[in-house]
Amino acid sequence: MDWEYIDLQAKQWVMEAGDKIRDSFTETLNIQTKSNPNDLVTNIDKEIEQFFIHKIRKTFPNHRILGEEGLGDEVNNLDCVVWIIDPIDGTMNFIHQQRNFAISLGVYENGVGKIGIIYDVAHSELYHAISGKGAFMNDTQLPPLNKVTVKESIIALNATWVMENHRIDHNLLIPLVREARGTRSYGTAALEMVFVATGRVDAYISMRLSPWDVAAGSVIIEELGGVVTNLRGHKLDFLSKDSLLVAKPGLHQTIINDYLKEGKW
Amino acid sequence: MDWEYIDLQAKQWVMEAGDKIRDSFTETLNIQTKSNPNDLVTNIDKEIEQFFIHKIRKTFPNHRILGEEGLGDEVNNLDCVVWIIDPIDGTMNFIHQQRNFAISLGVYENGVGKIGIIYDVAHSELYHAISGKGAFMNDTQLPPLNKVTVKESIIALNATWVMENHRIDHNLLIPLVREARGTRSYGTAALEMVFVATGRVDAYISMRLSPWDVAAGSVIIEELGGVVTNLRGHKLDFLSKDSLLVAKPGLHQTIINDYLKEGKW
Repeated sequence: MDWEYIDLQAKQWVMEAGDKIRDSFTETLNIQTKSNPNDLVTNIDKEIEQFFIHKIRKTFPNHRILGEEGLGDEVNNLDCVVWIIDPIDGTMNFIHQQRNFAISLGVYENGVGKIGIIYDVAHSELYHAISGKGAFMNDTQLPPLNKVTVKESIIALNATWVMENHRIDHNLLIPLVREARGTRSYGTAALEMVFVATGRVDAYISMRLSPWDVAAGSVIIEELGGVVTNLRGHKLDFLSKDSLLVAKPGLHQTIINDYLKEGKW
Repeated sequence: MDWEYIDLQAKQWVMEAGDKIRDSFTETLNIQTKSNPNDLVTNIDKEIEQFFIHKIRKTFPNHRILGEEGLGDEVNNLDCVVWIIDPIDGTMNFIHQQRNFAISLGVYENGVGKIGIIYDVAHSELYHAISGKGAFMNDTQLPPLNKVTVKESIIALNATWVMENHRIDHNLLIPLVREARGTRSYGTAALEMVFVATGRVDAYISMRLSPWDVAAGSVIIEELGGVVTNLRGHKLDFLSKDSLLVAKPGLHQTIINDYLKEGKW
């Protein structure tokens, strides 16, 4: 498989899709005041997913596609090559902020991440990695992630998870938040993973994400020596919804062992 | 008082200070790996505050200056004209992200906000208002803030405030977070106020901020019809630390009345 060729194609399509999204900004802002903004965004989401599907089917007819909008294939396993796509991750930010959203595109072969591309459209920052060939922000290679202690770390997690909820005992997370240097919440899993990749935050925790939220980010994070699992410390399967803990090396182990009790809950 | 002249001067100095901060990025990133990053940032904070003090004293020798770094005057009242300055709001973001920090500069006359300037240096976005003359992002006038319900709103607040803490009964805030559309946390009061001004979020809540965190943002928000008080619904005095609730009209009243029990706690 010529991953470099696939990567080149994919990046070109992602940049094109970014242009389409940028072009929609004026239209979005106009329509938002007239009708239900959620309808419009669904249209853009679908349009972008359809754009990718069209390109992939034409160029790589044997590859399958798992997309958030469900316009691709019904994917029940990751045999051979599967593209896992979120056309707009952070839809609520897209509507309210026209910032803090991203295109997320991962390419997997037999369940193993080969290519990860996340495009922060508003900031024109393209994060990309081919497994084993380094991770980049635009043309700049990202340095490997260093170990960090909880006390020094900024953790991205939503306030919801330190309130009583039916996904996790919030008492497991409260001590972590208390001991960390600070917390942030940006409302976009793809970018929050990329922020771990660049050191803008040190860890990211979420309770219920879909394969398209995390497929691209996983390739980028692992390429830099970061660790991606669910909150019980198990590998993700990229077929079902799951919790997520992305962190710098060392910090990941500490959070799983000392705060999340090695998944014994 | 020629507020337009003062505003023009202030904006020019803020832009110059932004350039200085941008120039420091390379240096910061280099030094960060060698020594304690907090030392360096304190230096930049101080350097920028000193820059403002020098300019203000030369041009407006009768004005007093209240700055985060304490290099200005000892200010115990807001008689006559007082400049309230945070040279870098969001220091932790400045160190970790080189993004999501701002210069915040408010000018008050006898306790009344006259000028508010917040510069999002990384995004080159200058937010500014002269009381009664409209609020702007760069050259674009910002529209007045519309009413919004809790259910439709995105609220900026840190996870800390829905955990048990000694500033507020977290059980007051939990229902608000549950009923809102979502929450975010960016770690910079000045920008979180500006995000309310632009509709990127609908409200911002924090428990302990200083006058320099909120002085500029208050002028901008109030100019747009938004409401700024502490969490008991009282006006801020811009001399002491206080809690903060900034919100769109209507939403502010609902949060105070229905969630914060009109300050009866």
